[in-house]
Amino acid sequence: MGETVDTNASFLAKQLPLLGIDLVWVSQVGDVQPQIVEVLKRAWNRSDLVMTTGGLGPTGDDLTRESIAELMGEKMVLIPELERSLRERFLRFGTHQMPETNLKQCTLIPSAAAIPNPQGTAPGWWIERDGRILVCMPGPPREMHDMWERSVRGRLEGRSGQVILARTWKTSGFSEAAVGEMSFPLFPTDNPSLGVYARQDGIHLQLKVTAQTVGEADRLLSAGESKIRQVFGSTIWGTDEETLEIAVGKLLAAQRKSLGVIEDYTSGFLTAGLAEVENSPSFLKGGVTAVSDAAKIAMGVPAAALSRGAVSAEVAVAMAEAARVRFGADIGIGISGTQPAQANGAVHYAISDGTVREAMVHPRGKERLATTVLFELRKLLLPVDGQGT
Amino acid sequence: MGETVDTNASFLAKQLPLLGIDLVWVSQVGDVQPQIVEVLKRAWNRSDLVMTTGGLGPTGDDLTRESIAELMGEKMVLIPELERSLRERFLRFGTHQMPETNLKQCTLIPSAAAIPNPQGTAPGWWIERDGRILVCMPGPPREMHDMWERSVRGRLEGRSGQVILARTWKTSGFSEAAVGEMSFPLFPTDNPSLGVYARQDGIHLQLKVTAQTVGEADRLLSAGESKIRQVFGSTIWGTDEETLEIAVGKLLAAQRKSLGVIEDYTSGFLTAGLAEVENSPSFLKGGVTAVSDAAKIAMGVPAAALSRGAVSAEVAVAMAEAARVRFGADIGIGISGTQPAQANGAVHYAISDGTVREAMVHPRGKERLATTVLFELRKLLLPVDGQGT
Repeated sequence: MGETVDTNASFLAKQLPLLGIDLVWVSQVGDVQPQIVEVLKRAWNRSDLVMTTGGLGPTGDDLTRESIAELMGEKMVLIPELERSLRERFLRFGTHQMPETNLKQCTLIPSAAAIPNPQGTAPGWWIERDGRILVCMPGPPREMHDMWERSVRGRLEGRSGQVILARTWKTSGFSEAAVGEMSFPLFPTDNPSLGVYARQDGIHLQLKVTAQTVGEADRLLSAGESKIRQVFGSTIWGTDEETLEIAVGKLLAAQRKSLGVIEDYTSGFLTAGLAEVENSPSFLKGGVTAVSDAAKIAMGVPAAALSRGAVSAEVAVAMAEAARVRFGADIGIGISGTQPAQANGAVHYAISDGTVREAMVHPRGKERLATTVLFELRKLLLPVDGQGT
Repeated sequence: MGETVDTNASFLAKQLPLLGIDLVWVSQVGDVQPQIVEVLKRAWNRSDLVMTTGGLGPTGDDLTRESIAELMGEKMVLIPELERSLRERFLRFGTHQMPETNLKQCTLIPSAAAIPNPQGTAPGWWIERDGRILVCMPGPPREMHDMWERSVRGRLEGRSGQVILARTWKTSGFSEAAVGEMSFPLFPTDNPSLGVYARQDGIHLQLKVTAQTVGEADRLLSAGESKIRQVFGSTIWGTDEETLEIAVGKLLAAQRKSLGVIEDYTSGFLTAGLAEVENSPSFLKGGVTAVSDAAKIAMGVPAAALSRGAVSAEVAVAMAEAARVRFGADIGIGISGTQPAQANGAVHYAISDGTVREAMVHPRGKERLATTVLFELRKLLLPVDGQGT
């Protein structure tokens, strides 16, 4: 019904290439046993490695174990050792006795070995049969990541005999088609293979290489990077996991400049993003979410300005100045705006390092507005000849 | 390679049941034409409606159009009207001429009609053939949601002859197995069908009903709700889209109590979540992200307390008191802690309404800590006899 966004697939999609394993197929299916069995049968017949997440809970709609037993033509058997350890877990952590329903989390089929789950009540299943591997992990991301790290990754390491590495470069200022026309001719073969993706923070280029060794893969990627940097130069603002917040944080730290933020429309989103950057205390003096007039006045925005309208250049500039002065920062950012309900209206924001820059935008959500403001801040911090397009 | 988390599937999974359409299969596949064709062929053969998102960009790795042409055994044809309108779009918005690569976004196969995309350069494709429907939409969520709203939803309405509705209740205090044992016996049939899910904010129960009319579906759901509320009572803290932030916001608004927040470990996450609640200005006086000592001192935390250690009960209490006093709020929340890099350490938080409550936790990320603090705040606001377990 759509409440769950599947982040497990993208977690594994990031992890598997590091082991040289090419992730080709991803399927999602509901809690309906014939459908789960159909998906599993197809996966088992076409792939060397099949991984499942979810459906290992104790309730009647958790059907992964039952479906695998059906696929393999084997019977689920209660394992006394698993039962003992789960009952102990309930005694240790629980406020009540183990419900009998949990017993199905203590079962295995003969082909399966249990994978420990210190974070939850559902052990994983590890199955090797007919030269193939099937690994079942729990659905909650915290449990799944932990089980992957402790017990699964190590057992898959070295099995593929190859490595797959990828590197990403993030550009701003070009359209997706323009980036494509500039970059695809550089990589005419399948290895490295190029992907071009339109993202909220610009167009990303990604090179993916398959090689026998990490060294060889690195050499191929570095050769590719030279070609890409020659074409895109300073329009590349970041690489790989580097977010715009990290890129701007690096510039601030390198220039020993500090930042203060007062937000209304983005209600803490900009500050929270910047605060996540490692060593953010070195450049982020503080941020205030000021959604009410009272909070803005408490921070030093003149009541008179607010009485002329809470969304105005005047208020945004006063917020930026207040952010700079109150936090003793070199640069202050003020974002005015209205609550989500009236989010289609205009928003004024201002950046001040003594000199004030102000702009009005029609924002399409917090994330895009934060991106706009960060790109403006980046412009302010870049040497003039490094601003690219 | 895992950079993309697929939110389009969950968006559609929420939308389709409202049209009485049962979403059964979801597949993800890379930019490899034979694999895309294989997935599409299977989908086309087993389903009345197939929807794709993504792969409509202008670059060589955008292969949805080519794959569908192959599946249908039809040829892609350049449509002069689409070309004219795309060239116009580039003149209007672009900083440069339309790259020739974009021409493939102006093509159709004979069975397809174009679906307008005011938010981007890629029109969608609408195909009806052999009594089946295939709808292709762009990948960027903003473009996809807009196209769905404007042009796709209306055309699917009324076609299924049924409605599917779901309702969710969110509990705290029970294990997943316990909730399962208490609830599955209440719903022995397939309609309504019950699902029980372990989530970060507790165990959720979901009822899903299929009916001829909305009225009939509503009646079935309401009857189910009575049974669930009888069993779970006040341990239900929210329903459907109601987050913990919304639930707590309602309690605050009903009691005309206001809130101020100063955060370190959660670095604005708690405030940002609360600020997203509609009419948050009525209860949220303000929030400060204070990740540095300087920011905490500026808000009124005694420097002497910080010099004894930035993570302590003393600092958390001082932050809570400062949040209450500085923002003129009835209740202040202070969350101490360390930067993400040392996130395994302890965190102290405090809630003050004049009387101070303080606790130390070993947090597992911002989200879980914010949840812990919100449940504490909820306890403080609930009448003693309504606190459930």
